[in-house]
Amino acid sequence: MPLDAAIAEIETLLGTRLSLTQAERDLHSRSETYFGPTLPDAVAWPETSEEVSAIVKICAKYGVPIVAWGAGTSLEGHALTTHGGICLNMSRMNRVIEVSAEDMLAVVQPGLTREELNTELRATGLFFSVDPGANASLGGMAGTRASGTTTVRYGSMRDNVAALEVVLADGRIICTGSRAAKSAAGYDLTALMLGSEGTLGIITELTLRLHGQPEAISSAVCAFDTLEAAVETVQMTIQMGIPMARIEFVDEEIARVFNKMNGTTMPEKPHLLIEFHGSNDGVAEDSKRFGEVVAEMGGADFQWATSSEDRNRLWKMRHGAYTACLASRPGCMGLVTDVCVPISRLAEAVAAARADIEAEGLIGPILGHVGDGNFHAIVLLDRENADELARAKRVAKKLAERSLAMGGTITGEHGVGLGKRGLMTAEHGEGWQVMGAIKAALDPQNILNPGKVVPDLPLPESAK
Amino acid sequence: MPLDAAIAEIETLLGTRLSLTQAERDLHSRSETYFGPTLPDAVAWPETSEEVSAIVKICAKYGVPIVAWGAGTSLEGHALTTHGGICLNMSRMNRVIEVSAEDMLAVVQPGLTREELNTELRATGLFFSVDPGANASLGGMAGTRASGTTTVRYGSMRDNVAALEVVLADGRIICTGSRAAKSAAGYDLTALMLGSEGTLGIITELTLRLHGQPEAISSAVCAFDTLEAAVETVQMTIQMGIPMARIEFVDEEIARVFNKMNGTTMPEKPHLLIEFHGSNDGVAEDSKRFGEVVAEMGGADFQWATSSEDRNRLWKMRHGAYTACLASRPGCMGLVTDVCVPISRLAEAVAAARADIEAEGLIGPILGHVGDGNFHAIVLLDRENADELARAKRVAKKLAERSLAMGGTITGEHGVGLGKRGLMTAEHGEGWQVMGAIKAALDPQNILNPGKVVPDLPLPESAK
Repeated sequence: MPLDAAIAEIETLLGTRLSLTQAERDLHSRSETYFGPTLPDAVAWPETSEEVSAIVKICAKYGVPIVAWGAGTSLEGHALTTHGGICLNMSRMNRVIEVSAEDMLAVVQPGLTREELNTELRATGLFFSVDPGANASLGGMAGTRASGTTTVRYGSMRDNVAALEVVLADGRIICTGSRAAKSAAGYDLTALMLGSEGTLGIITELTLRLHGQPEAISSAVCAFDTLEAAVETVQMTIQMGIPMARIEFVDEEIARVFNKMNGTTMPEKPHLLIEFHGSNDGVAEDSKRFGEVVAEMGGADFQWATSSEDRNRLWKMRHGAYTACLASRPGCMGLVTDVCVPISRLAEAVAAARADIEAEGLIGPILGHVGDGNFHAIVLLDRENADELARAKRVAKKLAERSLAMGGTITGEHGVGLGKRGLMTAEHGEGWQVMGAIKAALDPQNILNPGKVVPDLPLPESAK
Repeated sequence: MPLDAAIAEIETLLGTRLSLTQAERDLHSRSETYFGPTLPDAVAWPETSEEVSAIVKICAKYGVPIVAWGAGTSLEGHALTTHGGICLNMSRMNRVIEVSAEDMLAVVQPGLTREELNTELRATGLFFSVDPGANASLGGMAGTRASGTTTVRYGSMRDNVAALEVVLADGRIICTGSRAAKSAAGYDLTALMLGSEGTLGIITELTLRLHGQPEAISSAVCAFDTLEAAVETVQMTIQMGIPMARIEFVDEEIARVFNKMNGTTMPEKPHLLIEFHGSNDGVAEDSKRFGEVVAEMGGADFQWATSSEDRNRLWKMRHGAYTACLASRPGCMGLVTDVCVPISRLAEAVAAARADIEAEGLIGPILGHVGDGNFHAIVLLDRENADELARAKRVAKKLAERSLAMGGTITGEHGVGLGKRGLMTAEHGEGWQVMGAIKAALDPQNILNPGKVVPDLPLPESAK
């Protein structure tokens, strides 16, 4: 069997860093959300780019699918080996290779997580800004073009990756990008790889842009009587050009979950969580202007988190929202929607989403990076209830279609994976076929994460 | 002849909007810089996306090269029909289709120039930020991933194009991107098209991001005794996190040219031209902090341009630098270098460039977007002197190779065109072959701007 031959060759290369045990295969068969388990044939732990290249060459030789695995925190099943093959666990490639304070760049391996990087950077006065809820691996974040609470100010992975080292489907190693702030030297292969979810190459090194720790930070929470008032406050703040570092919306259900999980006493109403970064005077001025907008929109219970502990507690709570929501309904699983709409349509989109969820009789707290027009409903599902899942999928589809009708996108930051492929034609039309043509050109055997992102292509020889 | 048949079909479609006259072909055979003329077989003026699609379909049917032409201001020969075929003059597709103040977006046709767009936006309180020296067409700016003096604050075309409508090599029309602030919905086709210089598709519509006119603007000019002091001031300002909207370097030769052209009395020394955008208080604080850095670095003759007329004069002078340099040596032509290096290497790179130019006995004023690490030498050449051109090319190559050795790029903003293809392997290695594979997949006949950006591919049937 070609699969067995491939596994034998990889074993020769990696020794005990290749596992065929049921336990390891099980561990790498599951995602954070509602997708069913899919077993890889083997799990490999490479330590160098050259090893990744050698493994890919073996997979190419025998037509074996190969899928990279970061921290396993993806919400759309990206890292599931739906057609079997090799799961490439990148956790041993987790070094910070270099930090250049002068150029505000860090060179890292893909298995490093965002929190690990920031711990490493603590003494430098710099930080890496992109912060999805989970402590995701930086390779995975690049693969899904991730973003987070600070994207409104500092951008997403699209803006914060200067260069990549990538292993192609035939094992060649290329470097995309440079250390320069910009370039016009041909096709933007860095941007093409970001968001390609392991279907065009396997990222083995990232050059990331860092930002200076602001001189002053000021965070606040405030409550609103209605979802519309909260979201309109966001729209107005953006239009006034007040430079927010973060502006997050949580609805009354999330406030309830937060209170229960964290012992807080937030009013059970829609809230905005915001933060300003800058000089002392600048932050004071921004905060004052924002306060005026909030007052005008009827916001209340305005609380500034002045100490760094209070601020950390606030954002830790926000980042823990997904886990807290799941914990609020024991034994449940989550389906998380992820539309991103033009800011002018945000209030309308959030209100309509709330109505859709209620109409289907579901529990789905809403929160999001509203400064980007991006929001999530965390639909909580009984694992045993197929009808609930069907209703949740109906809601997710409705939200995505409404987002497209408003000029938005089906996914602001979670990516396509398994969950969004069915909507790609609706978003991209013939553009989806163009993506397929690029995939076919760069991975003619379809060994790199087959069955994801692009239209169906013939599967490789050893795929299930 | 297939070419004649193609021209006949296009003529049926466009009538008098297709020209075969020597005069029009001549006008579209030249670039702004040292490349020799290359005659298109015909010049077409489409008015709609559908017409562009129909023309491309005819070209595909007969294997005829097709090259879009914007304002003709490119510096690397991008729009030259080096293999003949149809020159697609986009100047009649110059409408502003829509301005959405709420979403801070403008939808425009590609033949519109950046200045025309900003004139149109004047009453809205918004502006389009990307400002290459020339009054380029927005389609051309997208094609070359252009940037300008404000890129240090507002980004390049990469950051300011939300979506594109593109006609592919087979005439299909696709829309890339959306009106959302971000998306993770598959391959970033918008980014792939930006900087592809008409080799992957012809841009027929752009959705551009706009910015709010700042409440306060403050500009200044200051002189330094040495190039190193000026450039180190830039590095220090960036590291201190002072948020510049513009920071431009001009050397003593440019100061001399400015004085001659504009009747100014700048000291004939290296200068920085800077600008801050923000609130009244913010701009005052930024200006104060910058003034302290300048004082520390020995800068002198600090002059603030307080009135908007003074400011406009300052930036008009800066944008006119290329023309002014050419005019300073009557009858000459220019070869403009365009490296972009990591900011930590900028002083060294500029000093080395100055030495290289002097060593070759050339005149080459230096200026640039130093906040991005991007600078240009405008090498002034006698049209009749082949040896001077050879020396200038040697300098350009040396600068590019040094930039790569420093972790930079061969072109920060001018693009590849004809001038930089020979350096693409040095910058991208196997990545250049990947670009070729993408081109071959999306334009298998190689009719879209053949001979540019990517490695040589077989020419279409009717190419010269």
